[in-house]
Amino acid sequence: MRTEICERLGIEVPVFAFSHCRDVVAAVTNAGGMGVLGAIAYSAEELETELRWIDERVGGRPYGVDVLVPGKIAEGVSGNDVLRLIPDEHLEFVGRLLERYGVRGGELGAGLSRQADDAARRVTAAGATALIDVALQHPIGLIASALGPPPPEMVERARAAGVPVAALVGTVEHARRQVAAGADVIVAQGTEAGGHTGEISTMVLVPQVVDAVGDVPVLAAGGIADGRQVAAALALGAQGVWCGSVWLTTEEAETLPSVKAKMLAASSSDTVRSRSRTGKPARQLRSAWTREWDESADSPGSLPMPLQLLVAEGAMARIGPAAEAGGEGARDLANYFVGQVVGMMNSVKPARQVVYEMMERYGEAVDRLAGLGRD
Amino acid sequence: MRTEICERLGIEVPVFAFSHCRDVVAAVTNAGGMGVLGAIAYSAEELETELRWIDERVGGRPYGVDVLVPGKIAEGVSGNDVLRLIPDEHLEFVGRLLERYGVRGGELGAGLSRQADDAARRVTAAGATALIDVALQHPIGLIASALGPPPPEMVERARAAGVPVAALVGTVEHARRQVAAGADVIVAQGTEAGGHTGEISTMVLVPQVVDAVGDVPVLAAGGIADGRQVAAALALGAQGVWCGSVWLTTEEAETLPSVKAKMLAASSSDTVRSRSRTGKPARQLRSAWTREWDESADSPGSLPMPLQLLVAEGAMARIGPAAEAGGEGARDLANYFVGQVVGMMNSVKPARQVVYEMMERYGEAVDRLAGLGRD
Repeated sequence: MRTEICERLGIEVPVFAFSHCRDVVAAVTNAGGMGVLGAIAYSAEELETELRWIDERVGGRPYGVDVLVPGKIAEGVSGNDVLRLIPDEHLEFVGRLLERYGVRGGELGAGLSRQADDAARRVTAAGATALIDVALQHPIGLIASALGPPPPEMVERARAAGVPVAALVGTVEHARRQVAAGADVIVAQGTEAGGHTGEISTMVLVPQVVDAVGDVPVLAAGGIADGRQVAAALALGAQGVWCGSVWLTTEEAETLPSVKAKMLAASSSDTVRSRSRTGKPARQLRSAWTREWDESADSPGSLPMPLQLLVAEGAMARIGPAAEAGGEGARDLANYFVGQVVGMMNSVKPARQVVYEMMERYGEAVDRLAGLGRD
Repeated sequence: MRTEICERLGIEVPVFAFSHCRDVVAAVTNAGGMGVLGAIAYSAEELETELRWIDERVGGRPYGVDVLVPGKIAEGVSGNDVLRLIPDEHLEFVGRLLERYGVRGGELGAGLSRQADDAARRVTAAGATALIDVALQHPIGLIASALGPPPPEMVERARAAGVPVAALVGTVEHARRQVAAGADVIVAQGTEAGGHTGEISTMVLVPQVVDAVGDVPVLAAGGIADGRQVAAALALGAQGVWCGSVWLTTEEAETLPSVKAKMLAASSSDTVRSRSRTGKPARQLRSAWTREWDESADSPGSLPMPLQLLVAEGAMARIGPAAEAGGEGARDLANYFVGQVVGMMNSVKPARQVVYEMMERYGEAVDRLAGLGRD
C-alpha cells in the first residue's frame, strides 16, 4: 500500500481523510494516513484555532487543508448583496416547507443576515485567500482546492511554502486543466462520491485521468470505504484514496445524531445527486428536503450557488435542532452530503479503526489477486 | 485471473462478453473467455440459426445466451394489442421529430405493425420460453436473465439441462432475491454500464453483493473495458467481469458505422441514463433523440416499457439508414446503448485483441499491486 505519494508526502498509508471535523483529521493522521480539514465552514480566526488544536495532537505528522475556491463571485460582495438576490418565492417556499413539517422558529429571513455574511465570505476569492494564508502558517503537508482550478495566487503561495496543491476533478478534461494550472496531485472523484460530484463513475474516471496526467499522482475518490475498494483504486492506477463519507459515522464525527442514525440505516440507494443544498449537483441523503425541492409541484427550483446554499443552510440551522428534539417532520427533512458507500457504513467505530480495517482488507484483497496468478 | 468460476464453467479467463453479434460471441469464446449472445432481437427460428453458426465455430467451447424475461406482460398479447396502447400524442411527436431532423419515409404507424408483433413476442413470457427452449438444445454453458428474477420454469429447465443460470442485478436487495429464485451466478451491474442500469456504481455495488450472496459467484459489470478495471473488479471480490460496451467498436461488431463513429469520438461524459429508448432507464449515447424526449418543451414524456421500445425501434429503423445515407439530422438523432467506458473506446480492434490486451494490462496491474507489498 506504500505508493510513491507516501514517500513524497511523508505518510505511511495513502489514505486521505477529508473531514470538517478536527478530531477525524487528527485521528487519521495519527493512524498513518493524512487527514484533510475542510475549511469552508470557518472564518480565518476559527481556522487558526482548529489548526493549532490539530498541531498539538499530531506530533509533527503532515496533514492537509481543503479550501473551496469558486472564483466566480466578485470581490467586495457583502451578505446583504447576496441576500437581495434571493427571490421571495424561494423564501416563501422554505417557509411553507418548515411549517408543513412542523419546524418552528419565525421568519426565515431574520436569521439569514449573519449567515449571508458568512456565506459571502466563504465563497469569495478574498475569503479563500484569507484561509490559505492561515493554513500556510501551519506545518501542513497538502492544500486542496475543491472547486475549479486552483487560482495562480494559491499555487504561487503554496509553492513558495513548499506545500503541494491537490485539486478535485470529475472529468479527464478538468484534470488536464488542473495540471496546467499547477496542481501537484489530482483527486479523481467519481459520481458515487458525497458532495459536489460529476456524472462519471470512479471505475471509469480513474484510469482515464491516470493516462491523461502523466507523472502527476492521482488519488481515487468516490465509492471507497473498505480495503477491497482501496485495492481496486490502486489497481486502476491511483496512488491512493481520498475518502469523505466513511468518517461521518465514526465516533469522532460531529454529524448530528439524527443524521448519523439515518446514515447507519441507509442503503446505497438512499442518496441522490441534487442541487437543493448548494445550487450545484451534490450527492446527499435522499430526504423530504431533496424530494420537496426536486419533485414537488410547487417547488420554485433550486437557485444557483451560493444562493441555494444560503437558503438551505438557513433552513438546516432550524431543521437540525428540531430533529434532535425529536420532531418527526424535521427528521424527515434532515439530510447531509454523503456518497453511495453510506450503504456500507453500518456501525460506529473510531476513525483509527476504519483505517486499520482498510489496511487489513487491502492486504487480503492483494493476497487473493496474487494467489490467482498474473495471467 | 483464473478464478473458481473458470473451473466451474470450463473457460480460461473470466471475461464474459455480452453481445447481440454472433461474431463477437464466437471470437471472445475462442479467445478463452465466454461470449454471451443477447437473444432479444431474434425469433426462435433466427436464434436457432445463430446458435448453429456459433456451434460450428467454437469447437465445443462453452458460450452463453441471454434472454430478457420481463414477466410483466400477459400471455396472448398481439402486436395490435400493443400498438393500440400507444397514444397518438407520442406518434405525432415522433413524426414531428423525424420531419424536423429531415428523416423521411411516411407515416410512422405504417411500419410498426410487424415490429409490434416482434416486440410483443419478445417481451412476453411465451416468447422468452421459446428462446430458452432453443438455447437449451445447444451446448451452451450459461443462460442469463437480464430483467428481474429468472422465472421458476427457466431455472427448472436450465437445471435439468445442467446449465447454470446467471442474473443481472443493480442492488443488493435484487441480488438476494435472485439467489432465492435460484440464480447460480450474479452479475452485479453498476450505473455506469450501458443499457438498463440502476443508480449504484460498480465500485460501491460489487463488494456489497459479494458480501450478501455467500458462495454464489459474482461477476462485475459496468465500467470495465481494460485490464486495470478487470483487476479492480477482482479486488472488489468479483470472480470475473461481464462486459458489453467494449465490443461495440470491435471489427466484428454490427454497430451501424455512423453510431460506431460517434462511439469512437465520444468521451465518458457523452452518455445519459434515459427512458427514451425502452421506457426504462437505460444508459446510451446522448443524442438529439435523448435530448428531444427528455428535455424539449413539447416532449410528451417516455411511455412505459415495451411501448416506448416499440416507438423508438420504429423510429430508429428509419433513422439508421438515413444516417448511413449521410443525413445530418439523422446523425444527430442516431444513438445506441453504451456505458461510460465509451470514453476509453478509441480505436477499432478485433474482439480477440481486446481480450488479450485485457489480460496483459491485468497482469501489469497485479504486478504493480504485488510490488507495493501487502501492507
